[in-house]
Amino acid sequence: MKRGSEDAAAPAGDPWAECFEAAVQLALRAGQIIRKALTEEKRVSTKTSAADLVTETDHLVEDLIISELRERFPSHRFIAEEAAASGAKCVLTPSPTWIIDPIDGTCNFVHRFPTVAVSIGFAVHQELEFGVIYHCTEERLYTGQRGRGAFCNGQRLQVSKETDLAKALVLTEIGPRRDPATLKLFLSNMERLLHARAHGVRVIGSSTLALCHLAAGAADAYYQFGLHCWDLAAATVIIREAGGIVMDTSGGPLDLMSCRVVAAGTPEMATLVAQALQTIHYGRDDEK
Amino acid sequence: MKRGSEDAAAPAGDPWAECFEAAVQLALRAGQIIRKALTEEKRVSTKTSAADLVTETDHLVEDLIISELRERFPSHRFIAEEAAASGAKCVLTPSPTWIIDPIDGTCNFVHRFPTVAVSIGFAVHQELEFGVIYHCTEERLYTGQRGRGAFCNGQRLQVSKETDLAKALVLTEIGPRRDPATLKLFLSNMERLLHARAHGVRVIGSSTLALCHLAAGAADAYYQFGLHCWDLAAATVIIREAGGIVMDTSGGPLDLMSCRVVAAGTPEMATLVAQALQTIHYGRDDEK
Repeated sequence: MKRGSEDAAAPAGDPWAECFEAAVQLALRAGQIIRKALTEEKRVSTKTSAADLVTETDHLVEDLIISELRERFPSHRFIAEEAAASGAKCVLTPSPTWIIDPIDGTCNFVHRFPTVAVSIGFAVHQELEFGVIYHCTEERLYTGQRGRGAFCNGQRLQVSKETDLAKALVLTEIGPRRDPATLKLFLSNMERLLHARAHGVRVIGSSTLALCHLAAGAADAYYQFGLHCWDLAAATVIIREAGGIVMDTSGGPLDLMSCRVVAAGTPEMATLVAQALQTIHYGRDDEK
Repeated sequence: MKRGSEDAAAPAGDPWAECFEAAVQLALRAGQIIRKALTEEKRVSTKTSAADLVTETDHLVEDLIISELRERFPSHRFIAEEAAASGAKCVLTPSPTWIIDPIDGTCNFVHRFPTVAVSIGFAVHQELEFGVIYHCTEERLYTGQRGRGAFCNGQRLQVSKETDLAKALVLTEIGPRRDPATLKLFLSNMERLLHARAHGVRVIGSSTLALCHLAAGAADAYYQFGLHCWDLAAATVIIREAGGIVMDTSGGPLDLMSCRVVAAGTPEMATLVAQALQTIHYGRDDEK
């Protein structure tokens, strides 16, 4: 496979080049494990709701990625989905920090629905430096490095330049909570976008891959309430490096820990989508 | 690419083997054209609503498929999406009839969202004989021949055996009509399935590819109001040959012209989904 990292090769002196290369290698290895496990029988457990699933493979892949990175970079910190579910705090300090979702799209994974990714983001001084997302079944490697562009399998990514919501394809995800009040708000937000005559709304079951579609210009906007910092970290770098906007649903700057996001190819589109939405309050990742 | 047709090779004496082979060749050729056109600028027109799109490529591909088939099989009849949009009647007579969607997922195609298919179904004496669906960007060829099984790139397809709606991944599509009353019903149906604790609902923007996911066991149920016979014909054979159920949303037998469908891996799942739905009345394909 042709690799994004070849085209996005960091110039000499990039302090995070070794980390980026490690992330790419681990995402590819994790992807192989997930691809193989996709067709096997799974033991499934639930987390915050009956729709919030986890499997042995989520734990296996997360442990693999963290143990290898910890060995190579012993001073680094980690925020990862399954560790957080087990009570580890999600705090972004100035230290180099890896932000990891071992399987994004676990519900898809459980059902063998082939839209599943590994997501590895990396931040230093609370600033996102790079993101690596691997679409396991389609073998697409998305990468973004701050100031160095975004790529998919060696091809440079470029967001859509659409500014008219009535010509937009919009992506979203349902989110983990399924109580009646949350569902009403989720569906009402979808209704508002369709009333605004968006061409369509898509729900593919993987936030990170939806955000990668946005980075590739295959959709014009994305919004979600109830996603986590590990769904967002890597994708945010990729979208920004593809020329896009990632911001808070209030219209303000992105807060990685706020469990909500609007992303779009243009500021105009991001603002139109943000203005159409009602807030669904999910709490913060760093207050759990 | 390994081909489904090799494994599903019709035994000697299959009267429709030549037709099936022609469908496979044309789907692959059409797919090449669509894949190339995906990245180019498009002139987009609207049909029944602002969200019901058509491009030059839809017309080009439909004309290619029909002209080649008409030359080889001059006595056969045709039902095809863009001809129907131009006023041609959709009537399924006992004659051998090709039922064609040149680009399923035109809205995705317009946005370069890589979930786009060619769908070619074939019926004789009002009975579906085979279906060929080609996922243009992922180069997956789905085929089903009555009594001969269903395949994707040479691998036999098998539906999910899930019977519990609370463990189901359910697929649907929004449909072309976007008036407030239709949207309310569409969203209310999604709400009913999520209240019934379905693991998730996915909307990928291509009815035929969603139905292929169902045939592959990657989802447990599909329902839609407002789809057409050309979205359903090929997929119906593929799902049935993969062991699944395709029926009317009333719970009765499928009516290809009724613009509504429930499909599932098991009769239990199909019935549970059908019972959860409110009907959205779209009229019939053969009364337009």
